[in-house]
Amino acid sequence: MTTLGDSFHVYDTTLRDGAQREGISYSVTDKLAVARLLDSLGVGFIEGGWPGALPKDTEFFARAAAGDLTLKHAQLVAFGSTRKAGVKVDEDPQVRALLDAQAPVVTLVAKSDRRHIERALRTDVAENCAMVRDTVRFLVDEGRRVFLDAEHFFDGFAFDPDTSLRVLESAVEGGADVVVLCDTNGGQLPLGLAETVADVIARTGFRVGIHCQDDTSCAVANTIAAVQAGATHVQCTANGYGERAGNADLFAVVGNLVTKLGLPVLPHESLAELTRVSHALAEIANIAPDTHQAYVGSSAFAHKAGLHASAIKVDPELYNHIDPDTVGNDMRVLVTEMAGRASLELKGRELGIDLTRRPEALTNVVRTVKELEAGGWSFEAADASLELLLKRELSELDEPPFTLESYRVVLDHRQDGVIVSEATVKVHVAGERVIATAEGNGPVHALDAALRKALLPHLSWLDTVELNDYKVRILTDQHGTDAVTRVLVESTDGEREWTTVGVHGNIVEASWLALCDALVHKASRVTG
Amino acid sequence: MTTLGDSFHVYDTTLRDGAQREGISYSVTDKLAVARLLDSLGVGFIEGGWPGALPKDTEFFARAAAGDLTLKHAQLVAFGSTRKAGVKVDEDPQVRALLDAQAPVVTLVAKSDRRHIERALRTDVAENCAMVRDTVRFLVDEGRRVFLDAEHFFDGFAFDPDTSLRVLESAVEGGADVVVLCDTNGGQLPLGLAETVADVIARTGFRVGIHCQDDTSCAVANTIAAVQAGATHVQCTANGYGERAGNADLFAVVGNLVTKLGLPVLPHESLAELTRVSHALAEIANIAPDTHQAYVGSSAFAHKAGLHASAIKVDPELYNHIDPDTVGNDMRVLVTEMAGRASLELKGRELGIDLTRRPEALTNVVRTVKELEAGGWSFEAADASLELLLKRELSELDEPPFTLESYRVVLDHRQDGVIVSEATVKVHVAGERVIATAEGNGPVHALDAALRKALLPHLSWLDTVELNDYKVRILTDQHGTDAVTRVLVESTDGEREWTTVGVHGNIVEASWLALCDALVHKASRVTG
Repeated sequence: MTTLGDSFHVYDTTLRDGAQREGISYSVTDKLAVARLLDSLGVGFIEGGWPGALPKDTEFFARAAAGDLTLKHAQLVAFGSTRKAGVKVDEDPQVRALLDAQAPVVTLVAKSDRRHIERALRTDVAENCAMVRDTVRFLVDEGRRVFLDAEHFFDGFAFDPDTSLRVLESAVEGGADVVVLCDTNGGQLPLGLAETVADVIARTGFRVGIHCQDDTSCAVANTIAAVQAGATHVQCTANGYGERAGNADLFAVVGNLVTKLGLPVLPHESLAELTRVSHALAEIANIAPDTHQAYVGSSAFAHKAGLHASAIKVDPELYNHIDPDTVGNDMRVLVTEMAGRASLELKGRELGIDLTRRPEALTNVVRTVKELEAGGWSFEAADASLELLLKRELSELDEPPFTLESYRVVLDHRQDGVIVSEATVKVHVAGERVIATAEGNGPVHALDAALRKALLPHLSWLDTVELNDYKVRILTDQHGTDAVTRVLVESTDGEREWTTVGVHGNIVEASWLALCDALVHKASRVTG
Repeated sequence: MTTLGDSFHVYDTTLRDGAQREGISYSVTDKLAVARLLDSLGVGFIEGGWPGALPKDTEFFARAAAGDLTLKHAQLVAFGSTRKAGVKVDEDPQVRALLDAQAPVVTLVAKSDRRHIERALRTDVAENCAMVRDTVRFLVDEGRRVFLDAEHFFDGFAFDPDTSLRVLESAVEGGADVVVLCDTNGGQLPLGLAETVADVIARTGFRVGIHCQDDTSCAVANTIAAVQAGATHVQCTANGYGERAGNADLFAVVGNLVTKLGLPVLPHESLAELTRVSHALAEIANIAPDTHQAYVGSSAFAHKAGLHASAIKVDPELYNHIDPDTVGNDMRVLVTEMAGRASLELKGRELGIDLTRRPEALTNVVRTVKELEAGGWSFEAADASLELLLKRELSELDEPPFTLESYRVVLDHRQDGVIVSEATVKVHVAGERVIATAEGNGPVHALDAALRKALLPHLSWLDTVELNDYKVRILTDQHGTDAVTRVLVESTDGEREWTTVGVHGNIVEASWLALCDALVHKASRVTG
């Protein structure tokens, strides 16, 4: 529990509303892993899914109930809908499935916009309210804590406030202890939304929660504004995953509540885990982490402006809205066209290389980096190549694990339309000369395959190294296909990720340089 | 001009602050293309860069002044800093470079946080204010309109409001007509920021602008809140590009101002261009469009929730915060790519192809485009390829000027370190079979050279056609070097420019497809 106890709820719906994001498809195992990570962070509630409606969600709750999920902080929540119109609550199979899920908390979604009640649900306000009241009471009588998600609340309240308030009242009459105002279509802006939240609290005295979608790019801001207006329950998803533009991002909401409003909504030690947990949840969702995400993105504290670098070195707190360590993130200084001594010195420190005591070496490194960057190299996203460059300049690098004699790549678009890429490399490794040939989908793939084939028998660690990502940028002004090509390669060994860069007029050679640096970097970690 | 005229400024800083985003590196040609797109949208001001500080920016302004950039709506803005402490303003080379840029508007950045003045600038408040006043007055006397970016304003105002206000006063004394309050570190939240904006306006009566960074994930919300508090000048970047977590996204800010606050800040017909322009600007920045971006993302109106699908069909307005057509986006209920009948019909009209009378042909085109887009093709920035596709589907295309039999590309990294790229093509042109071989800097350059060598004797118009730009995007990041590659080729014949696209697992074949389309397109204009 946080120091705020039950008086403030951080409620996560990554597993239900977050799963609506296009491209996300959690397995039951994924769902269990997500729940464990969220629990480790100390959120108060984890909405696990809609049992009875989705088979995977039913299975998730069954496995949780069978002991596959032990939560330290959070309570598990089953999400579902009220009884159907004209059906007795204890005879509604969907409501029974909510009980069978055995979660201590149930969140019921209900219509709170008269137009939706009449046009989508095709019933009247009185029956809709009875559905809410009956279902809440039934679940409360069965020992469940019940929250109400008032769907389309803000649009409904603007259209017909009395109906929307009657729906909330019905839930509280039934025994619900939080009514969650949902901006389901995501059209709200903070100032107006805060007014409505304050108005509802003033009129009803109910405990109010907030659920925002990001269609105006204001989901986080709306959530914070609602809290400032009196809401004490925030529904979020990890990394803002969700339908359309997504939901309010858990990490930005928590970051703002703790560091800006001073509300200790998570256990004290959890804040420094935000970055790690965000990235782990992105991995499980199989979505590349958003590098520019507030608080947790790898660029969230990255400074490019060269003219500020010396000032940043002296007074980092003047240039960051919070200390990045607070949320487990790092400040990075990007080495760019405007790279100066100060930013390279800082960069060296980041990489564990002390350049302050070696002014001459620093001068050489600065000159080399500037020359390379004038030729199209860019180290701002290629820390591993920059590290190799620094070590080479300082003569701190071991012998490379292999050397190239030559390579040849042949691409055939044959008369029958078949396209074949084949590469041959001749390399020296472990005292031997090795020749290997391989095919690939394209020239770089073939070259990578041939190099691996040549080296694998001699470098045992090589089979752990994989290419994660491969980016190409043509640096042109008016040169068309004879321009310089910059290639970025991101590699992983299952534990770490590192990025290397290669630049050349020939795209294959640029790729080769980046591929080689990736392996040399790994070798320096294996031997060093 | 918009119906609001000069009373409300949409001020774009994609080319200056947006370029601080990690990974963005605009060429001068890119910058000109970005400015043209922003101007076509009808923004009021385009900040082009920092002349004198960055050579590419100096060149951009020189080319604009030489007539390479004709703006219909926008005024071009040069960004720079005040004179240095202790230096006469007319002897400060950086200030002179701002004049030399010949832009009608200059935005000066100045410190407005006492801690920054004393600790980073190492001067005192009085000299800082003199620097602001002198520089503004000098530029105003030279006929420039001057805006002041008050850096770190909100942090500074909270720490020592008098100093921050004195900086604003100095600018207005010098003749600045907008003072822009900058949340440089991005730590603000909407309710507090709106209070400060209202407070500053009440105390000074100055015309106030707003510049927000996204470090709390509130840049868009903060910008809107500032407008609600009285700001009449908003600084944004396309797609929120910018340092760290980025800036306020132009498209979300404009979408909110127009559709939520009813402020006609862009020409009426521009709103429906937001989605197209956003995607085109992402292409130029060589950054994959954010599928979940508010208003303009391909998922922004995509509904996954199965249970709502039929209701959505009946009453779409109940499930979307705005009509997606308003911003040129599409609602998608099933998983489909961007292309819909209406947008292709429109596109056809743009290209002079009437599809309204040929519903069956339109159905075929829609299907073909969807299939291609599912495989990674994108016609957003490749009008010429889309035109060829439409004409092919309608059987309106002449015989192609040449056909391929086969090609072969050989790349050698020789033992002496020399790298050679050689291509041989076998083509049929003007009834003859032609074989030609050429070298190039890389595989695509060699292939382009061999093709030209083969065709030039038979196609007299070929020597007017040049490659302007060549862009490569690797599409799937899970597979490393065996992913699908998309190539965009921009060509020119000295009068017109056109862009073609090619997609393949092999980068050379993808380039070949785009190169061929470029020539076929030109041939269709020569013969047709």
